[in-house]
Amino acid sequence: MKISPYTQAQATHFDREPAKGIAARVVIGKSDGAPNFCMRVFEIAPGGHTPRHSHDWEHEMFVHAGAGEVYGDGQWHPLASGNVVFIPANEEHQMRNTGKELLVVVCLVPGTAPEL
Amino acid sequence: MKISPYTQAQATHFDREPAKGIAARVVIGKSDGAPNFCMRVFEIAPGGHTPRHSHDWEHEMFVHAGAGEVYGDGQWHPLASGNVVFIPANEEHQMRNTGKELLVVVCLVPGTAPEL
Repeated sequence: MKISPYTQAQATHFDREPAKGIAARVVIGKSDGAPNFCMRVFEIAPGGHTPRHSHDWEHEMFVHAGAGEVYGDGQWHPLASGNVVFIPANEEHQMRNTGKELLVVVCLVPGTAPEL
Repeated sequence: MKISPYTQAQATHFDREPAKGIAARVVIGKSDGAPNFCMRVFEIAPGGHTPRHSHDWEHEMFVHAGAGEVYGDGQWHPLASGNVVFIPANEEHQMRNTGKELLVVVCLVPGTAPEL
């Protein structure tokens, strides 16, 4: 069993367009022996955003803290703490922080996808 | 894309030993088209607990809110908001709420496991 604050995992920073203000952590992955899927936690700074992209694997997300928006189906949708987001494979998506605090999102991918 | 507060999913209540004070929700699962893994959210009331058990699939957990403990490797460990827990297949485990607020835990299982 592994138990740790998500902040204990090493952060990878993405702060060059098309990404801005992102600290990304693999918190449960292959190096922990996770066989089927991978948990990452993204901190998006106020004004920051992820790239707008699509890929052939799905996301299952849980918004832990903060306020922002997610782009999908051609428009932006509000995101708040406690929201759940499912993005099927090949759907274009993007997240941005529209608030004043960190936007913290737990985002899982299948084991066949890149961990980060 | 599906976006919703986790509380919008229908809750299943477990309140008879060996479980106590549990509201469980499948928030992303097969009915959403999720092909590989399933996200559930468990609310554990103050004084409540999950059963102590093991099974042949893993858990990847994220503690969203509250305070409690998780049993594993023969002892209880403290749990707080922002903690990540990985429980490999076949490891005995249990959670309990030792605080005064709801303990809210996001818990994922592979698609081969029961959703709830």
